Amino acid sequence: MSFLLEIDKSKEVLRQTYIADGSKREDDAEHSFHLALMAYLLSEYADEKLNREHVMAMVLVHDLIEIDAGDTYAYDTEGYKTKHDREVKAADRIFNLLPEDQALDLRGLWDEFEEEKTPESRFANTLDHLQPILLTDADNGKSWREHGVCTSWIKKRNVDTGSNAPVLKKLAEDMIDKNVRNGNIKDE
Amino acid sequence: MSFLLEIDKSKEVLRQTYIADGSKREDDAEHSFHLALMAYLLSEYADEKLNREHVMAMVLVHDLIEIDAGDTYAYDTEGYKTKHDREVKAADRIFNLLPEDQALDLRGLWDEFEEEKTPESRFANTLDHLQPILLTDADNGKSWREHGVCTSWIKKRNVDTGSNAPVLKKLAEDMIDKNVRNGNIKDE
Repeated sequence: MSFLLEIDKSKEVLRQTYIADGSKREDDAEHSFHLALMAYLLSEYADEKLNREHVMAMVLVHDLIEIDAGDTYAYDTEGYKTKHDREVKAADRIFNLLPEDQALDLRGLWDEFEEEKTPESRFANTLDHLQPILLTDADNGKSWREHGVCTSWIKKRNVDTGSNAPVLKKLAEDMIDKNVRNGNIKDE
Repeated sequence: MSFLLEIDKSKEVLRQTYIADGSKREDDAEHSFHLALMAYLLSEYADEKLNREHVMAMVLVHDLIEIDAGDTYAYDTEGYKTKHDREVKAADRIFNLLPEDQALDLRGLWDEFEEEKTPESRFANTLDHLQPILLTDADNGKSWREHGVCTSWIKKRNVDTGSNAPVLKKLAEDMIDKNVRNGNIKDE
């Protein structure tokens, strides 16, 4: 029960991305809800056999550590330096609110997501990259314009090199290209 | 893709329940995220064999119709008179944004949840009743006090008569009793 109340706090961890109509910033719980339904509906696009329930569980769990560690924006270079340490510390505390078997299960899901070595984690990461692009494309690039995101940052981050869903990867790339052309992302 | 953007709107459908610290009202996406993780962690408490992935999918889908139909508060007698018609109309529009096979799948999940005749739907409804009680108990009865909820309303609604998780049903009943004793729910 203490864990079930703890995860309620993910409804207050705000991301940089706005929801599709641009009216408010998205929180981690909303983001994870969206990813879980995407996992349910889009798993047929993976070019590896995967366990769909495992992907759904992984995306529901992947951002819980941000309750302590906070959201680190994809293009926040300084934040990324301390991201791993902050998140491991958070995982040690938050998952251990559960009985031992469940603590190990959820910690395993988070580690697997971060390591990106299994079909399920490659697909979960593909969705995690695609979803904010989908929303930001829909709201005419609001968070990209606010942060002055440019193509060199995107190339540096090398989005989705490990993706196992070529159709979804191509969709994300096409949306990025469109937003470079219309000036929402700076071409430099 | 139009469906994936449509469901984003569930982040703007506000429920009467506040999140556990009472700081804001919960939205449907946050509520469904919470239920999906509860389904993952608590399915062992069901006294019937069930498919956990099916429960997770069902709770992620069960409130999407509120994008059109709005949230109907559990104790809103007037709202309940038109609830079914509003929700069926919403289901007809929203799920049909999907390709036919997926539209049928999600409509099936919603119908199953509403009819409450399968082990998965009985468990999903148990979680859907428990979760707002858990949050409202945590914030000292904020939404119960705002709406003047009293024991006769709760008895009339007959919460969870079909539950297949006695431990979780008992937990909800104990929290209700505690909040009657401390005056957050009126005893009449």
